[in-house]
Amino acid sequence: MSENTIPYKIYLTEDEIPRQWYNLRADMKEKPAPLLNPGTGQPLTAEEMSGIFCEELVRQELDNNTAYYDIPEDIRNFYKMYRPAPLVRAYCLEKALGTPAKIYYKFEGNNTSGSHKLNSAIAQAYYAKKQGLKGVTTETGAGQWGTALSMACAYLGLDCKVYMVKVSYEQKPFRREVMRTYGASVTPSPSDTTNVGRKILAEFPDTTGSLGCAISEAVEVAVSNPGYRYVLGSVLNQVLLHQSIIGLEAKAALDKYGVKPDIIIGCAGGGSNLGGLIAPFMGEKLRGENDYRIIAVEPASCPSFTRGTFAYDFCDTGMICPLAKMYTLGSSFIPSANHAGGLRFHGMSSILSQLYHDGYMEAVSVEQSSVFEAAEQFARVEGILPAPESSHAIRAAIDEALRCKETGEEKTILFGLTGTGYFDLVAYQLFNDGTMTDVIPTDEDIAKSVAALPKVPGQG
Amino acid sequence: MSENTIPYKIYLTEDEIPRQWYNLRADMKEKPAPLLNPGTGQPLTAEEMSGIFCEELVRQELDNNTAYYDIPEDIRNFYKMYRPAPLVRAYCLEKALGTPAKIYYKFEGNNTSGSHKLNSAIAQAYYAKKQGLKGVTTETGAGQWGTALSMACAYLGLDCKVYMVKVSYEQKPFRREVMRTYGASVTPSPSDTTNVGRKILAEFPDTTGSLGCAISEAVEVAVSNPGYRYVLGSVLNQVLLHQSIIGLEAKAALDKYGVKPDIIIGCAGGGSNLGGLIAPFMGEKLRGENDYRIIAVEPASCPSFTRGTFAYDFCDTGMICPLAKMYTLGSSFIPSANHAGGLRFHGMSSILSQLYHDGYMEAVSVEQSSVFEAAEQFARVEGILPAPESSHAIRAAIDEALRCKETGEEKTILFGLTGTGYFDLVAYQLFNDGTMTDVIPTDEDIAKSVAALPKVPGQG
Repeated sequence: MSENTIPYKIYLTEDEIPRQWYNLRADMKEKPAPLLNPGTGQPLTAEEMSGIFCEELVRQELDNNTAYYDIPEDIRNFYKMYRPAPLVRAYCLEKALGTPAKIYYKFEGNNTSGSHKLNSAIAQAYYAKKQGLKGVTTETGAGQWGTALSMACAYLGLDCKVYMVKVSYEQKPFRREVMRTYGASVTPSPSDTTNVGRKILAEFPDTTGSLGCAISEAVEVAVSNPGYRYVLGSVLNQVLLHQSIIGLEAKAALDKYGVKPDIIIGCAGGGSNLGGLIAPFMGEKLRGENDYRIIAVEPASCPSFTRGTFAYDFCDTGMICPLAKMYTLGSSFIPSANHAGGLRFHGMSSILSQLYHDGYMEAVSVEQSSVFEAAEQFARVEGILPAPESSHAIRAAIDEALRCKETGEEKTILFGLTGTGYFDLVAYQLFNDGTMTDVIPTDEDIAKSVAALPKVPGQG
Repeated sequence: MSENTIPYKIYLTEDEIPRQWYNLRADMKEKPAPLLNPGTGQPLTAEEMSGIFCEELVRQELDNNTAYYDIPEDIRNFYKMYRPAPLVRAYCLEKALGTPAKIYYKFEGNNTSGSHKLNSAIAQAYYAKKQGLKGVTTETGAGQWGTALSMACAYLGLDCKVYMVKVSYEQKPFRREVMRTYGASVTPSPSDTTNVGRKILAEFPDTTGSLGCAISEAVEVAVSNPGYRYVLGSVLNQVLLHQSIIGLEAKAALDKYGVKPDIIIGCAGGGSNLGGLIAPFMGEKLRGENDYRIIAVEPASCPSFTRGTFAYDFCDTGMICPLAKMYTLGSSFIPSANHAGGLRFHGMSSILSQLYHDGYMEAVSVEQSSVFEAAEQFARVEGILPAPESSHAIRAAIDEALRCKETGEEKTILFGLTGTGYFDLVAYQLFNDGTMTDVIPTDEDIAKSVAALPKVPGQG
């Protein structure tokens, strides 16, 4: 089909929504390292996991070999409420940049949770329901994951308990109200509803909470209440499996028009979006069928790929979760509170970490003021107000397109537009007022938190 | 095509986006009454209008006869950024209600302005640009219209000056920041940037502003600055013309599957959404080709159709705008501040008023607590958090579907879901906390403001 017949938005039909998720691990020669029990230093067994996660999700977490998982019919029906997500040809952005590059973005923000998180939330809630559980618990910081999980649970009639970092609970009342509208109970953390919460409150009565603390409370509630399990929105292998729907749809849409991307770009916090977007493309690259430049974009304030260490570390700042091998800044690393986006995680998905370590992808870090410049430029011509997280990918995509303008190359760029910024307007206001600043950790900051990495057999 | 092949979401292709707007007035035997000059009591001439509105829009405003207007290519390209809007089969809502009714909704909220307002904003901005103007001015209350206009102006490189009611400017900083991100200047009204603003501030230094005052300021800036015109997001004939894209798309999508709605439902404030949604269906009804039940839904707190008077009245509380013949509660009627939705206009589009007067449509009023009950029920099963305005239509659609459940009738219901509620979470919080109340005007309240209607020849 000729170039000029490509519409602004490519929608698959509902029948073309993928019927299977793709498990990237099946095509990796070097598999991601297993999660370790922090007490024993040994790989976590399915039995150990099953008190925390529901059974099917444990299976998915541990399975490095099955390439495709059928998507259950009920999940596909839920997907039909907001999928297929459009693949957009950014004609207006290309024109504004004056670039010969062809830019596409996969837009995951057209649902009330405002991001791609819903893709895994419905899957995790579905398996919990199927196992006959009463409900699930989780933590949320900015609130996108909590919102997505609330929506999934409301749909399935499953109880949903969200522990929301107290400072976010107070400063982001709107996210909280969306979750409540979807029937979730939202508790500011630390709270007096758990042992760990009471202990922290006794010691630090004025604390505004942390993600580490909220995780601890959510896990405690899950393991101490029959019929509950804990769920997590990023980092885990199972999450990347569910999020492969992003890349599978994007690839199917491009294939319809015979388009092959040269460069694939995604923002990277814990890796849920990037891992999902690149999955089928990376699969081809691993199998030697096709080559793509794949670029992870992270904030300069929290640069786990570009300045971190590939090592076993805790996934949470509270150091109660299993150890994962990943690029990490150290679980004690606290990114600047100044940073507006949600890409504040100190570590990175083990799958993506292994792929980066093995040279299958690149990473760049970008400063937030330049990220918001890109966000504004994008919003004005493409009509979508992007989330700060997504805008990291926009920044990198614009930079690549401008390089094409210099060289005259007509490269095809695909990036992930993970969500909308409707709940991030405090950050936009800082940018509009010209008072946004960039804070980048020093080498000493990073060295200090990396020095505190846990001792694990085979790790210095 | 058989019933069960209807997808959850019917998307037209970009080629199927309508190429013409439909002017409902062409098929009305009784034309809507003309706007009057409040000074002379005579119909407003094109020349009188052209100092305020740009020329093509004056032509559209006055043209009761041309049935179809070609949509300019540049506007169609802008539409392609967020249209076609999906027509959704509400399978999950039907199941939750246990109704034999078939429910469809046309969803206009999948764009950053969050509503259908963008359909007319881009048209009005386009004609201003084409006339070589520098910019446009407008007022905004809740902010949806101001946001839509900011987006359209950013796309076209047109200056956009928005006067935002001061209390909204302060209480809804997020809407304001979206507009600023799109490059609009947003001024809290009353302000010291206009004569009328300075006069009001001198008299009432502590006023929090009103829509009437903001209109006065926006009009003053438009007429006193060369190269500027004033634009309005509802009520006017030209706005209903542009909004016919909603109904034309909805009808094309239904026609694809051979579906004919029995009942068509829309919320009604000034009439921009309802007039657009029903346009092609009402056209068939007026021409005697097909029959439909058409229902306007208004808030019990501001019931212009169901409790108002059909008479000439000012469109603004400041009484500086032309007189329009419409169902009105009187321009001095102030709906309860308690009401959360944006359907607070005292009057109604002249076109819709005439059609209602002539018996072509019905109207119902609903109380806001029952509206938010419907909103929550809808959100939980359909996955979209609806705007309070749109939720009025949801309430009525659910009520009709429940009647079908009683009678066993398999009616087909189409309603307009005009937008999302992401900037209305203060209202959702009231509902979630159980503190939302309903305030309904007394007969005396209405009689008092109706008694103050202006004296016009032929009107009592």
